[in-house]
Amino acid sequence: MEAEADSVVHEEERDPESNSLNQPLLKRNRTLSTSPLALLLAFLVGLLTGLIATVINLAIENIAGYKLLAIVGFIKEERYLSGIAYFTCVNFLLTLSAAVLCVFFAPTAAGPGIPEIKAYLNGVDTPNMFGATTLPVKIVGSIGAVSAGLDLGKEGPLVHIASCIASLLAQGGPDNYRLKWHWLCYFNNDRDHRDIITCGSSSGVCAAFRAPVGGILFALEEVATWWRSALLWRTFCSMAVVVVVLRAFIEICNSGKCGLFGTGGLIIFDVLRLYNLINQKGKFHKLLLALGVSLFTSVCQYCLPFLAQCRPCDPSFPEACPTNDRAGNFKQFNCPAGHYNDLATLLLTTNDDAVRNIFSSNTSSEFHHTSILIFFVLYCILGLITFGIAVPSGLFLPIILMGSGYGRLLGMLMGSYTNLDQGLFAVLGAASLMSGSMRMTVSVCVIFLELTNNLLLLPITMIVLLIAKTVGDSFNPSIYEIILELKGLPFLDANPEPWMRNLTVAELADAKPPVITLCGIEKVSRIVDVLKNTSHNAFPVVDEDVPVPGTVATGATELHGLILRAHLVQALKKKWFLTEKRRTEEWEVREKFNWVELSERELKIEQVAVTRQEMEMYVDLHPLTNTTPYTVVESMSVAKAMVLFRQVGLRHMLIVPKYQGAGVPAVVGILTRQDLRAYNILTAFPHLASHKEQGKHN
Amino acid sequence: MEAEADSVVHEEERDPESNSLNQPLLKRNRTLSTSPLALLLAFLVGLLTGLIATVINLAIENIAGYKLLAIVGFIKEERYLSGIAYFTCVNFLLTLSAAVLCVFFAPTAAGPGIPEIKAYLNGVDTPNMFGATTLPVKIVGSIGAVSAGLDLGKEGPLVHIASCIASLLAQGGPDNYRLKWHWLCYFNNDRDHRDIITCGSSSGVCAAFRAPVGGILFALEEVATWWRSALLWRTFCSMAVVVVVLRAFIEICNSGKCGLFGTGGLIIFDVLRLYNLINQKGKFHKLLLALGVSLFTSVCQYCLPFLAQCRPCDPSFPEACPTNDRAGNFKQFNCPAGHYNDLATLLLTTNDDAVRNIFSSNTSSEFHHTSILIFFVLYCILGLITFGIAVPSGLFLPIILMGSGYGRLLGMLMGSYTNLDQGLFAVLGAASLMSGSMRMTVSVCVIFLELTNNLLLLPITMIVLLIAKTVGDSFNPSIYEIILELKGLPFLDANPEPWMRNLTVAELADAKPPVITLCGIEKVSRIVDVLKNTSHNAFPVVDEDVPVPGTVATGATELHGLILRAHLVQALKKKWFLTEKRRTEEWEVREKFNWVELSERELKIEQVAVTRQEMEMYVDLHPLTNTTPYTVVESMSVAKAMVLFRQVGLRHMLIVPKYQGAGVPAVVGILTRQDLRAYNILTAFPHLASHKEQGKHN
Repeated sequence: MEAEADSVVHEEERDPESNSLNQPLLKRNRTLSTSPLALLLAFLVGLLTGLIATVINLAIENIAGYKLLAIVGFIKEERYLSGIAYFTCVNFLLTLSAAVLCVFFAPTAAGPGIPEIKAYLNGVDTPNMFGATTLPVKIVGSIGAVSAGLDLGKEGPLVHIASCIASLLAQGGPDNYRLKWHWLCYFNNDRDHRDIITCGSSSGVCAAFRAPVGGILFALEEVATWWRSALLWRTFCSMAVVVVVLRAFIEICNSGKCGLFGTGGLIIFDVLRLYNLINQKGKFHKLLLALGVSLFTSVCQYCLPFLAQCRPCDPSFPEACPTNDRAGNFKQFNCPAGHYNDLATLLLTTNDDAVRNIFSSNTSSEFHHTSILIFFVLYCILGLITFGIAVPSGLFLPIILMGSGYGRLLGMLMGSYTNLDQGLFAVLGAASLMSGSMRMTVSVCVIFLELTNNLLLLPITMIVLLIAKTVGDSFNPSIYEIILELKGLPFLDANPEPWMRNLTVAELADAKPPVITLCGIEKVSRIVDVLKNTSHNAFPVVDEDVPVPGTVATGATELHGLILRAHLVQALKKKWFLTEKRRTEEWEVREKFNWVELSERELKIEQVAVTRQEMEMYVDLHPLTNTTPYTVVESMSVAKAMVLFRQVGLRHMLIVPKYQGAGVPAVVGILTRQDLRAYNILTAFPHLASHKEQGKHN
Repeated sequence: MEAEADSVVHEEERDPESNSLNQPLLKRNRTLSTSPLALLLAFLVGLLTGLIATVINLAIENIAGYKLLAIVGFIKEERYLSGIAYFTCVNFLLTLSAAVLCVFFAPTAAGPGIPEIKAYLNGVDTPNMFGATTLPVKIVGSIGAVSAGLDLGKEGPLVHIASCIASLLAQGGPDNYRLKWHWLCYFNNDRDHRDIITCGSSSGVCAAFRAPVGGILFALEEVATWWRSALLWRTFCSMAVVVVVLRAFIEICNSGKCGLFGTGGLIIFDVLRLYNLINQKGKFHKLLLALGVSLFTSVCQYCLPFLAQCRPCDPSFPEACPTNDRAGNFKQFNCPAGHYNDLATLLLTTNDDAVRNIFSSNTSSEFHHTSILIFFVLYCILGLITFGIAVPSGLFLPIILMGSGYGRLLGMLMGSYTNLDQGLFAVLGAASLMSGSMRMTVSVCVIFLELTNNLLLLPITMIVLLIAKTVGDSFNPSIYEIILELKGLPFLDANPEPWMRNLTVAELADAKPPVITLCGIEKVSRIVDVLKNTSHNAFPVVDEDVPVPGTVATGATELHGLILRAHLVQALKKKWFLTEKRRTEEWEVREKFNWVELSERELKIEQVAVTRQEMEMYVDLHPLTNTTPYTVVESMSVAKAMVLFRQVGLRHMLIVPKYQGAGVPAVVGILTRQDLRAYNILTAFPHLASHKEQGKHN
């Protein structure tokens, strides 16, 4: 669980209504973000995603194409050893380039990136996930890794790439060279930033599968934690642009070869653990691991086809046979004229073409069952060892490859009992493995429909997905959840655990160190002290000894609101000190601060120098305070508090007392995401774990 | 706004965590509802919806079919007057049966029902909406109204029918004859009830269009206010069952005639107003109105085809020509042999066949443009006058009919400039009108794809939908929102208005009468008094003069929670009185109450008799109190309070003070849905309206 501390560094409340200072600016904000500006951004995200996806497709098609054509030449001249040397070397170099980029320049670009996006949309920020270096590394790395013929795909990476584009567009460029255009402020709050990244992730799926509606559903079902109807509309805009761009380029290419994509790995749990051990040993080991996998893949793909028997071409085949082209359904490879090698058709090709070949219908005699078996076993192994190496890698295509192999094999075994097409079996096998591993139903359904363009398959696909998900659910969580857990990202589940209803937030708060509150007008020395000695990201602001308007009560305490660490640091840095304990006027506030500065995240308390004289001065925290934090009463159950936390998308939640009277504190505690995670609660309250077990057994 | 008071009678908090009494039972509840039981219910909903949809389809096909075949006979024998008499009479009787049922037995069965479902899922309960009489009336009424050839459809009604099935299943039968099976308790809370009705509404769309994914998306985009991933999965199960049932029956029918359905009305605003006036005059007027519309429809459909010129059959036509069958693309009607009447093809047929004919491709010379123009104008008028009469009516099909006419007309005008098919123009016209009136995008997109089974149309459909929605949004809200407003249902919008951020909940509460709180151990006379003199559905329970644990403070007040009117009435009815002011033991509570009784809704305070002696006794409210109500601090903005209210799906929200001290009340106010509606706030704070205007002009 060490990674946890790392991944939540950037917790910060950027709520559009944070504090009184921002009101005039932010009033415009909310109006604008539901306006053409947000739509424009969605259009831009779609446009750029479409363009970049096209570039990636073209690059991969060309690199892999020329590589495979060269191999065909070697085989034709019976120079088998030169062939394998060339094949291995090219793949090795491509993997090297991808791995070097990922290891040295942008470690977050390795892997699919989808779990981190899911966590981000749930409220967990992974540092550098959407950075300016991540984007080009992921693009070039994906091209390299996929062209190298590794058992991984570009779907996951495309989702990540599109999210990076969305994030960079919304914040006006990379962190240090940000454009400070005024309208960009409108998106500089958590909600809009999350929305635009959701938009980006759908665009990625859409670009990967050319499945626009599937893309929307993917974002809805798998990625997004919060969803609102305005988002559906914006996502729809992005999809429309992506699909038009892709279609336009296909028309330009005039080749129809911009279709099916994706790779990754499945039974990856233990391998990942091993890889984590290796990866922790340093950058050199990471590189070695990636290159080792590349070598193994190349050798298998090149050598295994020699095991297959050559099969004679049947004149009834709908396509040319044999072929030496890059794609082609009947590769000649090492066979005599008039014969083809069925395993070479599946292995010595791009992953997309392999899927297309194995999905092809009316070809029941094309593949020998041992070839399909070799294909299936090989991709099980490759899927297992490829995921987790330091290159951008998607999970979709490895799962589709594995599933299609298993489906087609089943179709062959059932061949004598049914007249269903083997290609259909392959499609259903792939769909069931997708649903069984990722637990998506609607989106897989639509993605497959959009892939096969055959709506008559809908009922049978739905049944298959139903069974697959049900079986999967009875064994373990979905693959993304497993990855989230492995990476230690504090993801908040949709449903609270049953035992959370027997615990109140007050009990939870009691198990923590007492809450640290600040006064409305606080001494500088205390602020510095608090900031240096705690790592909290927000503090309640409480005014003491105030009169209560409309009543005779005096000497009451007032909960003024919540102040963020970043704003406190800014106040110190700007030296916004008062020599006496007084409230500031509004014009003073406006003079001192502007909103762009306040939203800067990076400043640390250690970087701010405060003289001893200044230590005795005061800061008026009122104008910097978010006066409308969400609160719960101390008797609230943890379960309901968690629902609130997740539904409204909070970072901090204040606990107020249920008692009213002299001497009662205004705030009882403060809860963050970490406090509400089941694992952490069970650590503090071990007796609840037994409840949990009981619940299971009942 | 009078209807408002009516429609919210049943506001009641049936939160699964309501009070301590229910804890042991409800612990199982939460666990179970995400379990096979909920899935089983989803399966049942799907199964019944599929069966009933098939019955409705078969009934309509047969009634309308025999009717139309008889007409063909009359025309053939040139007995034109007998023809119109027969046609008008049959339609009149069918309309009569539908209208009588709706007017006298279940007024809520009239209309599509979708706006009310949408309101229910938003938290507004319309009485008798999902009752046991509504279901059969809606089924028979739909069959009658659609067979009568009125310009309305069965899609909306099917959605309502499916929701009724879902509701009845979840509550174990009709209100008065409910099965008291134990497991049914698990669904007797608002959240699960809402979920299962969402499931039902998707099943309805799925059954209407045979578009399972479209059904899910419809529920997501249009109907549901809250959505969670478990719901997607359950809905998916229902869809799978529906689609399999429908497919199975189609195989059995072996006719392929169970396809496209739906009708309603569009520019209905003013007509509806007029109709409201007529409908208010009583049941007889309602009947007359429905029958008048039926007569007008019959006469138009029968007489207008005589205006069209007979067109010669072209041997290049892909189908038989002319035909005298019920369906057929080239109706002979009154024409000589070898000729067909193109307008009869569109008018003297079921609505579904009309849509199929006008969508048909490669038939550019089939229809004369005046015929299409007559068709379009007629269905504009019929759509306008049909919606609002007292029969079940859907909106989808009238919109599709109107849109397809307009699209095909446009295709004819553009014919010389483009080589796009006129059938495609018709499809796009229908899609654009759907999107322009209902503002749905993704679901319309998928529904049309599933209707046309041509994924290549996806990009152009998306562009058309984009434009239609954008144009629509710049003029008025969606048709369902207009209906919601007309019916005065207190629907909470997704986004708070900008001016709500300048108002605190305390200001809102100040404008209302002071909140009425009860003591933890309250005198019977006071309870009776409060229940009789207010119509509130929940009251805060506050204990006074209590010690604060862990502090030296004494004499504090404690916010114990929220108690429901229904539970107070039950306590009085059960005569659960104490002679002295003391707290009850837990065993006493268990003995007195069981959960099924507590969840009974109907009891009124007037039905409970309390003697004068009992008036002086006490009731311990603690065990009946929901101890974990959601709260906001008084300084919270109305905008954020509304987000919380809607996101978490509340009925009541308590306002707690931001001050802490002697003399401060424990509760400042209580907010309900009505308090948070923009219209009601603007009535209380007229000056905010000017803000609103300003915001618009800026």
